[in-house]
Amino acid sequence: MKILVLNGPNLNLLGQREPEIYGRTTLADIEAKMRHHAGQVGAEMDFRQSNDEGQLVSWIQESRGHFDAIILNAAGYTHTSVALRDAIVASGVPTIEVHLSNIHAREGFRRKSMIAGVAKGQVTGFGDYSYIMALDACVNVNASR
Amino acid sequence: MKILVLNGPNLNLLGQREPEIYGRTTLADIEAKMRHHAGQVGAEMDFRQSNDEGQLVSWIQESRGHFDAIILNAAGYTHTSVALRDAIVASGVPTIEVHLSNIHAREGFRRKSMIAGVAKGQVTGFGDYSYIMALDACVNVNASR
Amino acid sequence: MKILVLNGPNLNLLGQREPEIYGRTTLADIEAKMRHHAGQVGAEMDFRQSNDEGQLVSWIQESRGHFDAIILNAAGYTHTSVALRDAIVASGVPTIEVHLSNIHAREGFRRKSMIAGVAKGQVTGFGDYSYIMALDACVNVNASR
Amino acid sequence: MKILVLNGPNLNLLGQREPEIYGRTTLADIEAKMRHHAGQVGAEMDFRQSNDEGQLVSWIQESRGHFDAIILNAAGYTHTSVALRDAIVASGVPTIEVHLSNIHAREGFRRKSMIAGVAKGQVTGFGDYSYIMALDACVNVNASR
Amino acid sequence: MKILVLNGPNLNLLGQREPEIYGRTTLADIEAKMRHHAGQVGAEMDFRQSNDEGQLVSWIQESRGHFDAIILNAAGYTHTSVALRDAIVASGVPTIEVHLSNIHAREGFRRKSMIAGVAKGQVTGFGDYSYIMALDACVNVNASR
Amino acid sequence: MKILVLNGPNLNLLGQREPEIYGRTTLADIEAKMRHHAGQVGAEMDFRQSNDEGQLVSWIQESRGHFDAIILNAAGYTHTSVALRDAIVASGVPTIEVHLSNIHAREGFRRKSMIAGVAKGQVTGFGDYSYIMALDACVNVNASR
Amino acid sequence: MKILVLNGPNLNLLGQREPEIYGRTTLADIEAKMRHHAGQVGAEMDFRQSNDEGQLVSWIQESRGHFDAIILNAAGYTHTSVALRDAIVASGVPTIEVHLSNIHAREGFRRKSMIAGVAKGQVTGFGDYSYIMALDACVNVNASR
Amino acid sequence: MKILVLNGPNLNLLGQREPEIYGRTTLADIEAKMRHHAGQVGAEMDFRQSNDEGQLVSWIQESRGHFDAIILNAAGYTHTSVALRDAIVASGVPTIEVHLSNIHAREGFRRKSMIAGVAKGQVTGFGDYSYIMALDACVNVNASR
Amino acid sequence: MKILVLNGPNLNLLGQREPEIYGRTTLADIEAKMRHHAGQVGAEMDFRQSNDEGQLVSWIQESRGHFDAIILNAAGYTHTSVALRDAIVASGVPTIEVHLSNIHAREGFRRKSMIAGVAKGQVTGFGDYSYIMALDACVNVNASR
Amino acid sequence: MKILVLNGPNLNLLGQREPEIYGRTTLADIEAKMRHHAGQVGAEMDFRQSNDEGQLVSWIQESRGHFDAIILNAAGYTHTSVALRDAIVASGVPTIEVHLSNIHAREGFRRKSMIAGVAKGQVTGFGDYSYIMALDACVNVNASR
Amino acid sequence: MKILVLNGPNLNLLGQREPEIYGRTTLADIEAKMRHHAGQVGAEMDFRQSNDEGQLVSWIQESRGHFDAIILNAAGYTHTSVALRDAIVASGVPTIEVHLSNIHAREGFRRKSMIAGVAKGQVTGFGDYSYIMALDACVNVNASR
Amino acid sequence: MKILVLNGPNLNLLGQREPEIYGRTTLADIEAKMRHHAGQVGAEMDFRQSNDEGQLVSWIQESRGHFDAIILNAAGYTHTSVALRDAIVASGVPTIEVHLSNIHAREGFRRKSMIAGVAKGQVTGFGDYSYIMALDACVNVNASR
Repeated sequence: MKILVLNGPNLNLLGQREPEIYGRTTLADIEAKMRHHAGQVGAEMDFRQSNDEGQLVSWIQESRGHFDAIILNAAGYTHTSVALRDAIVASGVPTIEVHLSNIHAREGFRRKSMIAGVAKGQVTGFGDYSYIMALDACVNVNASR
Repeated sequence: MKILVLNGPNLNLLGQREPEIYGRTTLADIEAKMRHHAGQVGAEMDFRQSNDEGQLVSWIQESRGHFDAIILNAAGYTHTSVALRDAIVASGVPTIEVHLSNIHAREGFRRKSMIAGVAKGQVTGFGDYSYIMALDACVNVNASR
Repeated sequence: MKILVLNGPNLNLLGQREPEIYGRTTLADIEAKMRHHAGQVGAEMDFRQSNDEGQLVSWIQESRGHFDAIILNAAGYTHTSVALRDAIVASGVPTIEVHLSNIHAREGFRRKSMIAGVAKGQVTGFGDYSYIMALDACVNVNASR
Repeated sequence: MKILVLNGPNLNLLGQREPEIYGRTTLADIEAKMRHHAGQVGAEMDFRQSNDEGQLVSWIQESRGHFDAIILNAAGYTHTSVALRDAIVASGVPTIEVHLSNIHAREGFRRKSMIAGVAKGQVTGFGDYSYIMALDACVNVNASR
Repeated sequence: MKILVLNGPNLNLLGQREPEIYGRTTLADIEAKMRHHAGQVGAEMDFRQSNDEGQLVSWIQESRGHFDAIILNAAGYTHTSVALRDAIVASGVPTIEVHLSNIHAREGFRRKSMIAGVAKGQVTGFGDYSYIMALDACVNVNASR
Repeated sequence: MKILVLNGPNLNLLGQREPEIYGRTTLADIEAKMRHHAGQVGAEMDFRQSNDEGQLVSWIQESRGHFDAIILNAAGYTHTSVALRDAIVASGVPTIEVHLSNIHAREGFRRKSMIAGVAKGQVTGFGDYSYIMALDACVNVNASR
Repeated sequence: MKILVLNGPNLNLLGQREPEIYGRTTLADIEAKMRHHAGQVGAEMDFRQSNDEGQLVSWIQESRGHFDAIILNAAGYTHTSVALRDAIVASGVPTIEVHLSNIHAREGFRRKSMIAGVAKGQVTGFGDYSYIMALDACVNVNASR
Repeated sequence: MKILVLNGPNLNLLGQREPEIYGRTTLADIEAKMRHHAGQVGAEMDFRQSNDEGQLVSWIQESRGHFDAIILNAAGYTHTSVALRDAIVASGVPTIEVHLSNIHAREGFRRKSMIAGVAKGQVTGFGDYSYIMALDACVNVNASR
Repeated sequence: MKILVLNGPNLNLLGQREPEIYGRTTLADIEAKMRHHAGQVGAEMDFRQSNDEGQLVSWIQESRGHFDAIILNAAGYTHTSVALRDAIVASGVPTIEVHLSNIHAREGFRRKSMIAGVAKGQVTGFGDYSYIMALDACVNVNASR
Repeated sequence: MKILVLNGPNLNLLGQREPEIYGRTTLADIEAKMRHHAGQVGAEMDFRQSNDEGQLVSWIQESRGHFDAIILNAAGYTHTSVALRDAIVASGVPTIEVHLSNIHAREGFRRKSMIAGVAKGQVTGFGDYSYIMALDACVNVNASR
Repeated sequence: MKILVLNGPNLNLLGQREPEIYGRTTLADIEAKMRHHAGQVGAEMDFRQSNDEGQLVSWIQESRGHFDAIILNAAGYTHTSVALRDAIVASGVPTIEVHLSNIHAREGFRRKSMIAGVAKGQVTGFGDYSYIMALDACVNVNASR
Repeated sequence: MKILVLNGPNLNLLGQREPEIYGRTTLADIEAKMRHHAGQVGAEMDFRQSNDEGQLVSWIQESRGHFDAIILNAAGYTHTSVALRDAIVASGVPTIEVHLSNIHAREGFRRKSMIAGVAKGQVTGFGDYSYIMALDACVNVNASR
């Protein structure tokens, strides 16, 4: 099983950005933890980050035929991006939406996700462990949308 | 670690109720899977279901001092119950919200959760595997709210 | 044909509660009239009332396989209960929504019904005769949803 | 007892228009069934259809003193027509609103009725039997608003 | 000066329709009073009523070049008719909106007027005297929009 | 008949303020025209202006027993003042709302009037002639609310 | 004078639940204070708590003829329960709504009360002293609704 | 191919009505241009106008079996008419919505179309050339809805 | 303990203004009752009324250091005044909001209070006894906000 | 005449992405058809696609002075992009908005276009023929905004 | 250049009112700083404060012909006052809106300004330096609205 | 002091884009004026423009530790970009929002800023002088958020 993990804008600053909300773990720490866990469950993983909406759209498009699932933390683009939503549907690759913080317990505008309606499911609020849970779901759930 | 799993109204009909949305797994199947998984990760588990909002409120209240975490699928009460929300806060027990289906991809009124704002996190859309993911989160995440 | 008639909160006070809106007929009067009419059209009937949302949910669940149709006056729970809505769908028993008063001519919050979207149909505004009309509909309409 | 049955726009196409929603019964079939039933319960009936809002308004106005009740399926005008609403009040003739389909289970704009607030009651969702139920209500309910 | 007075749906029932709101004056009474007053101020007047939106639209269109002003009580069409609004602008004839009752003190849906935004002005709440005031305004105000 | 004419904030600048909307007539011109017209129809008139909401409230209160009607152009306070609304009801003096411009054809916030719901009627859009029309209404209409 | 004091969901946890909002007084403390105060002002009192909406509805119904007034802290059911609202009207017993915290200074959803519109009055924000104030109001105010 | 072109209220005034928005072309000009273009592409065309909503509904109904496509400029009825919407669906004839002006760049209420949701497509903003484009679409696009 | 009682617009008309809502007690009666009650509980009291928002703001500002609590019935300014809200916070004097009538059972615009969010608590619906209850609260509740 | 055709995010996947909505034609097919049609009508054409909002903004900016018209299918950016809207206005190049599917018949969020208000016109719902229609409009309509 | 600086309600309490939001600088401090800065840039300045909306309206009116610009901190009246808005337009004096705190980062009701739509510009969030910035803008920007 | 000035989409067209709104000054002119002013007040400045949201996000991120303040004109991204908002918070660099035009006096969608809630303050409406004011604020205000 091959899994593409995509991280949206500002996640490259993890560990220094608002640690009271996002914790002190860096994105590199998350990648390392995931890579270790992926090895244990026998999955391959590609792990990327971009601040650019268009780049994220393109990566999702290119996943078609090369990955079995996407784990997507679209960060700030979660709440407004129709382009990302369309890319998920167009790619046909089952996608799991993850968030480090509990987006339902913050500002009102973070409660709306343009991604969730076309995702397989959503995991939110467990810090970096959200990613591990999503990885387990990729492996264990029949992810056909 | 002791975990209380609470299931709200109509979940007792799982397996026969709208299988195209909720699948054919019964609630007893879920309990068995969770008990097996809990044994593997060294957790104790209590598993209950009620159609009654007041009963669910009371169970949450009584968990204080007896359980380390609650996994709550409040089903139809998710979207309107201030009483359940207040019970979670009053109990002081970290609570994870789970749903079998992806509530963000259904009718508009299912997108609002009164629980999510006071929960540790939310897992939604992975069928019965949502419960296993929540169980893993209980064990692996520092669940202090 | 077996029909389950369910009455929600405060309907047990019929005849003394706001007679200018609900009339002076008691719930026992309605039951008697319906039993008489059911006899005439060759239907069996079970007639119950509860102030408890959870009890109403359970009765709807248990109707599966035992009743051919439900006549439901959910009273105050009509406007907010996702649990009742889910129970109707889960039971698979065709359900007719009835109201004594014209809910469309009262306070704004009474105009929204969580039941109507999953009911076979709605009869509202004819006092206790609303129930007789619903009974006739059970017998005369191909009630498959 | 004399009853005026009024049918609004597009009901003349019944039987060919969206049969999956409205069934295969034609408007002439409904008229025949109602005439038969009216005969049984000792009522006289006038049955009309128009695509024209102004015509429907005029028919309601003219019913004053000539009919004891109106059964009105205003179809597409149900949701927007203040003129029909005012005509019902101006005529002083008790009016029952009927719909073939369950308007509460379709597009959002069909859920609002400008008629319901001034009607005696509403019957919706029972196909052509909605009309028979309304006829029974005319005869059996003390229809004074 | 030539003035066209147009009356919308249900105004033909004036005097018998809801006298507690509209009074006991008939439309013929209003026409007579206006004709008398028009004579006093040296104006000619044409006075018409229709229940039909399309007829009212056509009368407004035909007023171009034949009338100096329109006094319009669009009744129930006031609140929804884009067609009447467009006809007023298309005709180029200055139009005064009148109402017998105070539309701002009734149901919420009567507070919105599609006419007012393109009318010269609005007179509302003075019973049949609203028409006389509008007639005086036609004669005394430079009515160029 | 004694009439109190009250003018709200900024009306003292009439004639210099936005002449394309309000014209070049000054408030003194309006007072003179009204005084002349009041003389013709045999009415007494008191004419005042204030920029102060509290002062306008007090004047309305004091009118009780001293005036038969109030003509009120509350200007900018029209859209928000509950205090003025309460004062009109408390005084028990029939009140006519006037506006120089057509408030229904300007910014959205000018379309809502807190006054209109408790006024006898509203005259809007006829420039200073709005005041004359209101004066005629005071004299000619049975102004009991 | 006989007074029924009803407490809704989670109030049984008072003293341990969110003390920064609700203080450290327990429900038993409040009962004791009220019983003492009731003795001083010559009133009898029944004091109950339930987490169950249906139970609260039933208690309100049964108060008819046995109590002169109800003091109701419906807690989480305050904001959504049409059933409680209907029960108050159906019982005909004057009811005072109380809250420990200032519900108008918390989350938006706590600002709406389904109870307030049919209550005699509301006392909110004074901690347990809110109950004493309500008790005084029962005794001193002519409580006929 | 036979095409029915329907024009709604006030389009008969084209050329004189608000030329800065709609241009100086008359409806007869448009008919001539279309007839010429239809001849070139080998289509037959019927071209009608009515100010009457009911007439437009009837024309759409009667198109069934006689026309292959409808080009509809419903003008002012576009924004509110459920009856026209239902007629299009009932007729089963593929319908293209056209507008002379860009309805998305005008008043807010013109942005909502009741027609668009059941039309094949929409062409808006190209003056009379919008009609020619729609005609080409009828001929060139597989118009099955 | 020194208490400042402030009364907003139109309360000077109490006893004559809408007695069916506000009763026949005058503001002088309320002052007398409060002065008597204040004497009994050992409090000093200053009692004032103004129709002027700015005056009320200034009185609240000046209370700083001279009064221990404010009892405020802001009447019509309750629903819109940010200035009063800011003055309460700026003064730092604990403030109790009172209303004679039950503002939650009247027009929709009276349900919103700009004061309540910064007040200690709210007492509403008990006629003049609301003031006595507030006075008792000042004396008996630790009023630190 | 030189025309710039711009395609937004995910349009590069045309033919494989949701064929039930967008058909099986690829973007290269559309380009070929347009180039052929452009040749027939004597126009030059530049045809581009990007997933990047900033790139699309830059292309629109650079069109100034080099192209006579833009045909823009902004896809997912249509519904939210103020930057694209501003670019169109800043460039001063007349722009036609096209969509393959009927955006008015899909999810609610697709009904709002930030582009339409500043575009010459909109063509939506005709599959790839929408582009040909837009091309014809560029050539045949006096496209000055 | 002559500049009028107007301060609204509660600004006279600056330095003691909520120092965590507004700082410890007093209004007299601000006046002194501005007077010093005005001297440096060669401007004359009048500096006033009032808690009274009507007084502020009058000062703005009287500025016509006596001042070249107004710097207005309307404080609590910012969010609701149509009267102040109208006064600014009526005076014709270019007006700059200032706020000490960042009104966009506080309660929702502070985000709406009735002033901003008719002001030259807005400076918000820089404490007392907001006033200096506005003063510089008066001197350096061609302030014609 | 080192200041980063960031300009969003379409600002590179300044001077040619809608000069009636934005004036004839080019972005290079603004840079030159700012550089001159920065020299006078002893600040260093970096001045950049991009049409790309992701580029702007990255520049803000990279400013951490290299700049003391950001002056940000996010142009069209102001109204929707959560990514820019998060970047400002993540960077920890105090940020001032500027706009050339008065965004509060234009289309409704320009009144909402996603930036303002996390910015130090906002300067809007003074043309290019808005930037100079922001520069002065950077130097003179203790910019700790």
